[in-house]
Amino acid sequence: MGGDFGPPVTVPAALAALETHPHLQLTLVGDEQQITPLLGSVSANNADRIDIVHTDVAVSSHARPESVLRGSRNSSMFIVVDHVRQGVADACVSAGNTGALLMAGRHLLEPIPGIDKPAIMASLPATRSGGYSYLLDVGANVSNNAAELYQFALMGAVLASSLSDRPHARVALLNIGAEANKGTPEIREAAALLSDSPDVNYIGFIEGNQLFDGVADVIVCDGFTGNITIKTSAGAVKVMQRLLLGSIRSTWYYRLLGLLARPLLQDIQKELNPSRYNGATLVGLHGIIVKSHGNARQDGFERAINHAIKQIEDNVPALIAGKMQS
Amino acid sequence: MGGDFGPPVTVPAALAALETHPHLQLTLVGDEQQITPLLGSVSANNADRIDIVHTDVAVSSHARPESVLRGSRNSSMFIVVDHVRQGVADACVSAGNTGALLMAGRHLLEPIPGIDKPAIMASLPATRSGGYSYLLDVGANVSNNAAELYQFALMGAVLASSLSDRPHARVALLNIGAEANKGTPEIREAAALLSDSPDVNYIGFIEGNQLFDGVADVIVCDGFTGNITIKTSAGAVKVMQRLLLGSIRSTWYYRLLGLLARPLLQDIQKELNPSRYNGATLVGLHGIIVKSHGNARQDGFERAINHAIKQIEDNVPALIAGKMQS
Repeated sequence: MGGDFGPPVTVPAALAALETHPHLQLTLVGDEQQITPLLGSVSANNADRIDIVHTDVAVSSHARPESVLRGSRNSSMFIVVDHVRQGVADACVSAGNTGALLMAGRHLLEPIPGIDKPAIMASLPATRSGGYSYLLDVGANVSNNAAELYQFALMGAVLASSLSDRPHARVALLNIGAEANKGTPEIREAAALLSDSPDVNYIGFIEGNQLFDGVADVIVCDGFTGNITIKTSAGAVKVMQRLLLGSIRSTWYYRLLGLLARPLLQDIQKELNPSRYNGATLVGLHGIIVKSHGNARQDGFERAINHAIKQIEDNVPALIAGKMQS
Repeated sequence: MGGDFGPPVTVPAALAALETHPHLQLTLVGDEQQITPLLGSVSANNADRIDIVHTDVAVSSHARPESVLRGSRNSSMFIVVDHVRQGVADACVSAGNTGALLMAGRHLLEPIPGIDKPAIMASLPATRSGGYSYLLDVGANVSNNAAELYQFALMGAVLASSLSDRPHARVALLNIGAEANKGTPEIREAAALLSDSPDVNYIGFIEGNQLFDGVADVIVCDGFTGNITIKTSAGAVKVMQRLLLGSIRSTWYYRLLGLLARPLLQDIQKELNPSRYNGATLVGLHGIIVKSHGNARQDGFERAINHAIKQIEDNVPALIAGKMQS
């Protein structure tokens, strides 16, 4: 039910995922009256792999996170996370209220032993390589100590390796300089822990201007810094698009040019489209929760589902638990 | 002597500033052999307003900040800040090593009473309004408490009003959400101090994606967050330019389009050009120190000089001292 568009985006994305993944079983949790009409085109074979759990309660995107635990225990969001808790589902995907999803996850799922705090890991465009980098935490926490940053690095490496099929993910700490004496005491201590760890391929500090260079597969920071970082990036890209479109509309020459350049601009928007990088994972709990952007379209929401499937196939929570025991 | 280009940029910028400001007196501190040949075109009248103080010692951009106090007390950077301390100069402008400039400023100049820590304030494009916003601290500090954030807000408001001729600058705190319960304890406490203050036109929290919208004239954060924020913005803009140019080179159609669109792209680069927003101020000391980007060209360095002149005309350090006493 979540996100800016609800079932008209999430249901077609779910059906597309069924086509791609022949062993996928899906439970759609939400308003049956909205869901059923969208299933018209489904083959009998695929229809057998869909269950609908009806609820007409949805957590609003503006609701306070606590509401998912208080008034809305029969909401679609609470139910999907509870399905993961019960083992009825291997993973859940939501485009709804991030704070509420986090609250439900923390409340219903056990933390992985050795992980003090869960984190949210987002994907970033790594434009030089054409691939992805991953940034965590982007907002599950407000501040984090060195041990937590170390745990983020370890979890991020496991998750990034699963999502990108790349073993030995390169892990960096986001800092205000490359030299060892830079940054907060927490970051310097985390760097010491990571340098000593045989479990993480730690490559050192990177600065904000290197975030999109693909120099690291996993970039670790506290939740406050990560949240401001991704929002600032989105703001900077928006500014440039605004300037581009503003100039294009300004004179007849530029207007003509704008028409000619439309496919080019569309290519670039595709490249920087959050949908391509969609699927943030709440990591650190015994259970897989993937958060789609609220404004994701069908392809973006499908990508979030694919993220969840990858993590099921690799059993990422168990891999992380194994690392924490070693 | 500072910056990526040294006297070939800083000297012509200084001469241009002399043309614009008939009462300006300039002291150029650096290698006389490099400076003198660049003064060839100066009128006799303007030549009278230029002094040269010779030194062939310059702080390298890669040097550790401490070096300005240890080995390099006869460096151009140390001398310009010392001129401000002695009152021989009303302000100094440098495109050199930021850490060293900060070190020299802190060492040589007195703090303004009531200001616990100086901060660096940078300009940002406020693209909707076509003007500027100002962000501080962008890296003089690593972490800051509520009282320091409050002081940054107050100093930022005075400085922004001087630079933009806009009284009652709107001041916001950079945070991870707009609601009162968001963020670190330091930020929430700073918000309480600012809400109670009659001296600051405080408008609340803003998020990273609003940084370039011009919704606030002054945006306050700790030095770690600010440094990562401006570097991330630069990185995001660079990515978009790279994608634009990469696409333009990819096919003959786009190559042709690229040629046609060159003036458009140049306009946008101008709009987002750091030179336009150049001139970060080290604020909080009894003395005016303006830091130019190292990669500024003549117009950017001239803008940094203009920032210094504005602050001299309004006597910004005295205005801040007055506010702190009230």
